[in-house]
Amino acid sequence: MPLTKQVFIAVIGAGGVGKAFLSQLHHLATNLSRSPAAPTYVSLILLATSKKSIHHADYKSLSNWESELAASNTPPLPLPQLAEYLVNAPGKVVLVDNTSNQEVADSYPLFLKKGISIVTPNKKAFSSTSQLWADIFNAAANGNGSGGYIFHESSVGAGLPVISTLKELVETGDEVQKIEGVFSGTMSFLFNSFQPVNGGGGKFSAEVKTAKEKGFTEPDPRDDLNGLDVARKLTILARLAGLKVESPTSFPVQSLIPKELESVSSGDEFLSRLPEFDGQMEELKNAAEKEGKVVRFVGSVDVPKGEVKVGLEKFDKSHPIAALKGSDNIIAFYTKRYGDNPLIIQGAGAGGEVTAMGVTGDLIKVLRLLH
Amino acid sequence: MPLTKQVFIAVIGAGGVGKAFLSQLHHLATNLSRSPAAPTYVSLILLATSKKSIHHADYKSLSNWESELAASNTPPLPLPQLAEYLVNAPGKVVLVDNTSNQEVADSYPLFLKKGISIVTPNKKAFSSTSQLWADIFNAAANGNGSGGYIFHESSVGAGLPVISTLKELVETGDEVQKIEGVFSGTMSFLFNSFQPVNGGGGKFSAEVKTAKEKGFTEPDPRDDLNGLDVARKLTILARLAGLKVESPTSFPVQSLIPKELESVSSGDEFLSRLPEFDGQMEELKNAAEKEGKVVRFVGSVDVPKGEVKVGLEKFDKSHPIAALKGSDNIIAFYTKRYGDNPLIIQGAGAGGEVTAMGVTGDLIKVLRLLH
Repeated sequence: MPLTKQVFIAVIGAGGVGKAFLSQLHHLATNLSRSPAAPTYVSLILLATSKKSIHHADYKSLSNWESELAASNTPPLPLPQLAEYLVNAPGKVVLVDNTSNQEVADSYPLFLKKGISIVTPNKKAFSSTSQLWADIFNAAANGNGSGGYIFHESSVGAGLPVISTLKELVETGDEVQKIEGVFSGTMSFLFNSFQPVNGGGGKFSAEVKTAKEKGFTEPDPRDDLNGLDVARKLTILARLAGLKVESPTSFPVQSLIPKELESVSSGDEFLSRLPEFDGQMEELKNAAEKEGKVVRFVGSVDVPKGEVKVGLEKFDKSHPIAALKGSDNIIAFYTKRYGDNPLIIQGAGAGGEVTAMGVTGDLIKVLRLLH
Repeated sequence: MPLTKQVFIAVIGAGGVGKAFLSQLHHLATNLSRSPAAPTYVSLILLATSKKSIHHADYKSLSNWESELAASNTPPLPLPQLAEYLVNAPGKVVLVDNTSNQEVADSYPLFLKKGISIVTPNKKAFSSTSQLWADIFNAAANGNGSGGYIFHESSVGAGLPVISTLKELVETGDEVQKIEGVFSGTMSFLFNSFQPVNGGGGKFSAEVKTAKEKGFTEPDPRDDLNGLDVARKLTILARLAGLKVESPTSFPVQSLIPKELESVSSGDEFLSRLPEFDGQMEELKNAAEKEGKVVRFVGSVDVPKGEVKVGLEKFDKSHPIAALKGSDNIIAFYTKRYGDNPLIIQGAGAGGEVTAMGVTGDLIKVLRLLH
């Protein structure tokens, strides 16, 4: 007789990633229920946004979340009540956090301790204080605890297999020496356009404008140019590689926002004044060009030295980091086993579908582990 | 109170991969036994080569396999007896097949049905008849069956995360359109040296000789040049992408062995006569050069067309396949989600340490799944 399994899913966030995830969840749930040997029934019991929630006292499955959400007037449950609601569900529960909300991230230890598993692309949970990192992994079953499982592949490089690969290198006993790469789709696009390997490229401010128009930047481009997003990803990788990193501001991060424009009131004003600083960027570009190199915005972790840094670096035109295209990410792992030629992973590192793919992949891992 | 878990490991094969695996297993076992929340005790109960076996009737752990193996006069157990021995072990068992033996591969369904899990880099299990593939996955718990688990990351690209990534693309509902890459360290080295992107390179026969001297080829280089190794890897990837492939000889595979040298009696005679055919390879090289391209030996799967092929192709010098270095592998997944810029994985695809890493990584997955 086949073993059947019932798992309840609660989702927070219904933006780009959230919507793509819900569509992938539908596909997955259909496939899992048809497994001849061990069907798994996955049911969505809660969907919350920052303004609304849909869920039922009897944990009834949400069959048509789009119309139910549109019709709902229920505000989201405060996080402690959400945890209570989920812990009383008649079966195992996975919380899918598709937000980038710090408050939700801060509550992960609470959920995990109650046996609720978590899958998420939310970088803030893993790149804030080292205390939060410790609290999460001291509670999680795949850490030092006995609570729920936690996976966060999409917190670096979206669906690219970056975190799982780094974990496997470490767990199988390889020695990671250096991790280096382009970790931001926005920064990738900006520099691949600003200084292509084959020459050409526009003024830096013009490329920022184009990137914004194409939807490759945050509403205020300073939120990309300050380097914090990349610093958060490097914090996560450095911690997984065994370094103690207090926070994403505890190591050198180069901001591309000119000092004079840090405090201008709007993204639009910032964009209109940015051309005043094109000369500085042009100098960097020309200096690199003279050495036969190009400028790229990268992050790196030097494990033996315990150093993490984020900022502009020059690369030979034949280097894989220089040759990157579009808004792709690239991550190179230099390890004892892989020697001089690193293990490289490359591809889209942002976007709803590929970010959701990492989350869905993590959910599959949790479903296999829940017995 | 911590949950403790005891798992028994049986290893076949103590060559380059086998030895590297045993060293990684020692490291892993030490770490797992120290896990504060849920220590796992992994014990090696059998090690067999083609000539000898060490194992004890009471399933006592092998503490010093090197000296025990040297001292042993016990011939290996025939496979059905091996299965009987393992199934009677007082706990869950994982069989690690570090051989490339067809007979061992053919017996996987037997082991799996008895609840024994398998991890292996042995390509032959997954690239022989489609019947064997079906028998394996109809028995396995992570297929359609209720037996042991099976994982085989290192059967393509050694420790590079190729199979896990393809499985995740498929399981999360992406549509894989094309898989293309360089899947042989030998072929990578030969063509990167024969026609480097920056010009130069030696005669083809001279590069084959160098590759053999560096230990990059099989003892008889024809076993690399016939393309069968690459065809086996493509068979595995095509099947995982959903194509029905009868065998690795059921699609076009270009052999680089001149017809006239197919039946010469030894690898040495083959090498001494290969220079007679350098003119043909030189012509291919020059034809590519005229188009600004280079020649590479690649495999590809076109999923919508249901086509698999292996052989020489020309690539623009700026293409990631052309820019490959040393003996690295590269695998590009073109999918609906990743669009024009594929998801790329690159790095060493052969060697004892990195192959064993894939096997150890698979073992970790199985240990997590065994409760």
